[in-house]
Amino acid sequence: MQKKSNGMSYAPKGKAEPVCARGEFPVGVIGLAHGHIYGMCNGLSEAGADIVRVYDPDPLKVKAFRDLFPSAAAAESEGEILEDQRIKMVASAGVPDTRGPLGLRVMEQGKDYFSDKPPLITMEQLAAAREARARTGMKYAVYYSERLHVEAATLAGRMIQEGRIGRVLQVIGLGPHRISLDQRPDWFFDRSRYGGILVDIGCHQIEQFLFFTGAVDAKVLQSKTANYRFKQYPGFEDFGDATLVGDNGATQYFRVDWFTPDGLGAWGDGRTFILGTEGYIELRKYIDVGRSKEGDHLFLVDREGEHYHSAAGRAGFPFFGELIRDCLDRTDKAYSQAGFFKAIELAITAQRQALEVE
Amino acid sequence: MQKKSNGMSYAPKGKAEPVCARGEFPVGVIGLAHGHIYGMCNGLSEAGADIVRVYDPDPLKVKAFRDLFPSAAAAESEGEILEDQRIKMVASAGVPDTRGPLGLRVMEQGKDYFSDKPPLITMEQLAAAREARARTGMKYAVYYSERLHVEAATLAGRMIQEGRIGRVLQVIGLGPHRISLDQRPDWFFDRSRYGGILVDIGCHQIEQFLFFTGAVDAKVLQSKTANYRFKQYPGFEDFGDATLVGDNGATQYFRVDWFTPDGLGAWGDGRTFILGTEGYIELRKYIDVGRSKEGDHLFLVDREGEHYHSAAGRAGFPFFGELIRDCLDRTDKAYSQAGFFKAIELAITAQRQALEVE
Repeated sequence: MQKKSNGMSYAPKGKAEPVCARGEFPVGVIGLAHGHIYGMCNGLSEAGADIVRVYDPDPLKVKAFRDLFPSAAAAESEGEILEDQRIKMVASAGVPDTRGPLGLRVMEQGKDYFSDKPPLITMEQLAAAREARARTGMKYAVYYSERLHVEAATLAGRMIQEGRIGRVLQVIGLGPHRISLDQRPDWFFDRSRYGGILVDIGCHQIEQFLFFTGAVDAKVLQSKTANYRFKQYPGFEDFGDATLVGDNGATQYFRVDWFTPDGLGAWGDGRTFILGTEGYIELRKYIDVGRSKEGDHLFLVDREGEHYHSAAGRAGFPFFGELIRDCLDRTDKAYSQAGFFKAIELAITAQRQALEVE
Repeated sequence: MQKKSNGMSYAPKGKAEPVCARGEFPVGVIGLAHGHIYGMCNGLSEAGADIVRVYDPDPLKVKAFRDLFPSAAAAESEGEILEDQRIKMVASAGVPDTRGPLGLRVMEQGKDYFSDKPPLITMEQLAAAREARARTGMKYAVYYSERLHVEAATLAGRMIQEGRIGRVLQVIGLGPHRISLDQRPDWFFDRSRYGGILVDIGCHQIEQFLFFTGAVDAKVLQSKTANYRFKQYPGFEDFGDATLVGDNGATQYFRVDWFTPDGLGAWGDGRTFILGTEGYIELRKYIDVGRSKEGDHLFLVDREGEHYHSAAGRAGFPFFGELIRDCLDRTDKAYSQAGFFKAIELAITAQRQALEVE
């Protein structure tokens, strides 16, 4: 359908499995600063949404977006989309520091909001978002793509649900990213705009910890940040890590970084290790290093043996359809609002209390 | 040569590469509580040592040992070995809490000491060992087998030395172990005797961190212990982790646990991830889960690509020969005494300040 391009490299391809009728769930898009918007809109489209309108101050970004989503009319202003009575949800991958304030404006208009991660970057923005959510009843959903848009993670979630590894004791996440310096805008290096590495890409990891362990809350025990290598960008952080303990006694360690070597055949060798009392799971999300350029590898070890599963093309991305149904039915099946907010709250906490190393 | 048995399952097999003449380096053995003694003696033998005498209060253990090392005469007492003027080194895998005091007696006799890990379990024992070492000039070497007796780790050390991954920024270690409850003696469950999980098996991990990053000292930032599953043994800990920062700015995270599932084709899926500014290395030490029951897999990713190396049978165990030469030549090439002590000092620190989770 949509031709492959730079934008669609951010969009994992799933099966079209509409959960609503054509025209039933129109989505407007405000803010194209990050390519994640393609993944967000593709996931929603596959689940039955119509992308009907798009706005960004940069006309080149709008043109590129409309090449892939021609159903989206170009709006002249943000207001055109906010005031469009048809539109049920606004999706945004604006610059991270603008996502929180936009969310407030969206919810005030009686629309649900779907933000790229990080969905906001300060405790003040979080308090305002929680207040607006409580008052308006609108949703503030978040594209935590490193779980929601990864089939190996979908499969891991199912196996845990089935009790395959017993009680989940720990989640370790490695989230290396390729820096691709020549493709990055100025805000990428400005901590006041992207929020710091633990906020920006650490929130993915914390979301996985909460989801896989079932913890509702957690405490950040220790965290670190560093700018080891890219000292020409003083506001940048190329390394971060944290360890947490959940309210259910499960623990987490994660590392995020911008050190993916050029020789790796993927943007990052993302891994998740999930330790249970009765077995463990390893995810090799985007590549099986030295073995396969394909992603979505799951290794399960239990009492019976070592089991390999390729989740690619099999496990799917149920989140998008569930989110649309939640919006149409005013339910909370896809994800609790508390969970969307808790992951970023803990990420901001980890960022604020981080020890700077060098 | 030596027939395969339960004891030799603890002894990685290398090439015989003697560094001294037959009879030049006689070794006595005191304490057979842990099977590691087979790995220690086999490594020393391959490098040219003669195992000449053995003592343990349990005659069955002595018999089993002599089946594999028939050159070792059974001694009637510890004193017979300490007073044997031929013996240059005493090796011990006694119960952990006895290793420190034995080391003092060995050094006082003008002999070098080679202890299984943990080489001692309290700060008081450590202070006494450092004092005796300084006064006598004798060595207190430690069998940190998860690096010293793993060919993939030998190869990783060489690659780091060659600058293949640039500056080493971080080491993550996963050290799961199989509990094999029916084969464990009482002291295995008594923290006052084995020292706690971070001391007992955490010291391996810290030693690797110091070695691979070149840090001389480090600070324990956060650590945890738990007894999640084996609550019938109140003194036991089945989970531990810690995060450290080195005096050179490199950081570490490690987890150790006793949760290896019965279905895994090895005693533990030990991993080491070494992140550098120019590339990274992953070790799959004892198995490549779902792929191969063999161990010693090394994956290197750098600017040029993804490189797989099987280190098994290739990289060797240079430590033992270097240690023997160090003892004969009174040099410190194999390992600095400070390094042997620092790893266990930090492990005891991590144990003492650990947050207990459940």
